[in-house]
Amino acid sequence: MYNDLMELHTCLWNEVDVFDFEDDDFLPLSIQFPELRIRSHRSVEDFLAVADQADLLLTWDFEEGWYQACPRLKTIYTPAAGSDWVSPDPNEGVTLIQGAFHGLILAESVLGALLYMNRRMPDMMRNHRDRSWDRNLQRNTRILGNQNVLIVGLGNIGTACAKLIQSTGAKVIGLRRKPAKADTDGIETRSIDELENLLPWADHVILLLPGSTGTDHFMDPNLLRQMKKGSYIYNFGRGNALATADLLPSLDNLGGAFLDVTDEEPLPDESPLWHHDKVMITPHSSCVCREYKPLFLDEVMSHLRESFFYE
Amino acid sequence: MYNDLMELHTCLWNEVDVFDFEDDDFLPLSIQFPELRIRSHRSVEDFLAVADQADLLLTWDFEEGWYQACPRLKTIYTPAAGSDWVSPDPNEGVTLIQGAFHGLILAESVLGALLYMNRRMPDMMRNHRDRSWDRNLQRNTRILGNQNVLIVGLGNIGTACAKLIQSTGAKVIGLRRKPAKADTDGIETRSIDELENLLPWADHVILLLPGSTGTDHFMDPNLLRQMKKGSYIYNFGRGNALATADLLPSLDNLGGAFLDVTDEEPLPDESPLWHHDKVMITPHSSCVCREYKPLFLDEVMSHLRESFFYE
Repeated sequence: MYNDLMELHTCLWNEVDVFDFEDDDFLPLSIQFPELRIRSHRSVEDFLAVADQADLLLTWDFEEGWYQACPRLKTIYTPAAGSDWVSPDPNEGVTLIQGAFHGLILAESVLGALLYMNRRMPDMMRNHRDRSWDRNLQRNTRILGNQNVLIVGLGNIGTACAKLIQSTGAKVIGLRRKPAKADTDGIETRSIDELENLLPWADHVILLLPGSTGTDHFMDPNLLRQMKKGSYIYNFGRGNALATADLLPSLDNLGGAFLDVTDEEPLPDESPLWHHDKVMITPHSSCVCREYKPLFLDEVMSHLRESFFYE
Repeated sequence: MYNDLMELHTCLWNEVDVFDFEDDDFLPLSIQFPELRIRSHRSVEDFLAVADQADLLLTWDFEEGWYQACPRLKTIYTPAAGSDWVSPDPNEGVTLIQGAFHGLILAESVLGALLYMNRRMPDMMRNHRDRSWDRNLQRNTRILGNQNVLIVGLGNIGTACAKLIQSTGAKVIGLRRKPAKADTDGIETRSIDELENLLPWADHVILLLPGSTGTDHFMDPNLLRQMKKGSYIYNFGRGNALATADLLPSLDNLGGAFLDVTDEEPLPDESPLWHHDKVMITPHSSCVCREYKPLFLDEVMSHLRESFFYE
């Protein structure tokens, strides 16, 4: 057992309610780990003033310059779905632990989006608004279970999505930069280099790419042109991978787009995406739910138990 | 092998495109069973004029008086999801075979509806229309996988729905008039008599009752009052089970209602359901898809092979 008194600091305020951790949220931590001194901050200044005492940090973001203020820091935990906002330690002394729980939440949002587009819900909503009892609007739909789904970016989140989508019977292929030889967790996995060849096969293409600069405008006009007529595109990764200017002309050929992320966020009022008949926008909210904070803290507590407080 | 030349008649016209069988749709039948003489009709009169030659009949409906015109009739096949429209043979000489394929289609519509309501899509759509980037609208949502789902009417369709919903991790209980001792296909099954006790437990209540008169206004004001605050009700069975007049006052307490069937169909223009914020209506279309006709004919062909054309 690790016996020193450790300080765990938190910088987890956020403008989105379910991502905004308040003192009460940390009660499970203090109950489980009486050895920890928990200090929660509501501003960068508050944190930096005492950063030299922090052994562990829970934070949404971290700038490279802050490392020198944190000589005791061992581990940073971030609840974000990606490491975009935490600069790596140039001295490689500090470990970054990212939450792995997002897949559980996001998979439901993604499957909901697939069923939503597949069942022509944008049209059905308009029909509802017009009080029209049109039983032919969905005549060209097919069962999702008979369709092909391509997941571009098969990390933790993509794998969770693939598994849930597969339970409908749909055929799912996941693409990653370095595919394992064997399939990943029962998901057929191929190299991202095969994307162009697989696009004409897919009825639904789900972008789940990380937000690094290498993915800027990844889904370019040439790739969009390879998509099957009437197929759907989904972006639940980062907005930079799909430029609005590239997407718009391709919508003539596509069935539609469901975007949880956009290349500019918040999406500006004047964006033509807002009023395009084939586009559904959600405000980067695919992970917004009441379980977000407890799921993150459960993972933090598991890691603390394994790494610092094992018996 | 059954060697007589048999006549298979069809009365499968319908105003809904995907339910309207045309001559081409029967090609697989004539290819598989060259021994069958297939005669497809587009009106009752056409059929009744030659009904005395029919050995087998594929039909959406059948009136009791027609049996006396069909002395050779052995089996009626109906693609409807229920036996509402085929009167039973008073002499019990004719077997009625109902399609069992609906669950495959309906399960996706029902899961889509659950995810739709659970993720607050009616609010999200309004938000979209207002071009509002409100990341707090879904703050009170919870993962469907952590919730309780009650299926009222666990036949073939209910079982297919239960299985697909369970793949999210949700806890599902199915109610039926005569529950098997053991669970049905891995679905926890209880007697319909326990409904009142289970309503306060359920986050989502899915009505999948048949349209017999015994189910008129089944989900009455007393039962609606037992539902958990903020929970959702879905009707994908028959509209008679849930009266609009009973549902409306209960919506103050509920999270919302997703109705694929209504007590009057088409739902009249003046129905207050159309513009209620918490209600989503689809026009009895949960089974509308391109696979409907081929799936039904596959089942008919299996039955023909087993019953009349076995080697």
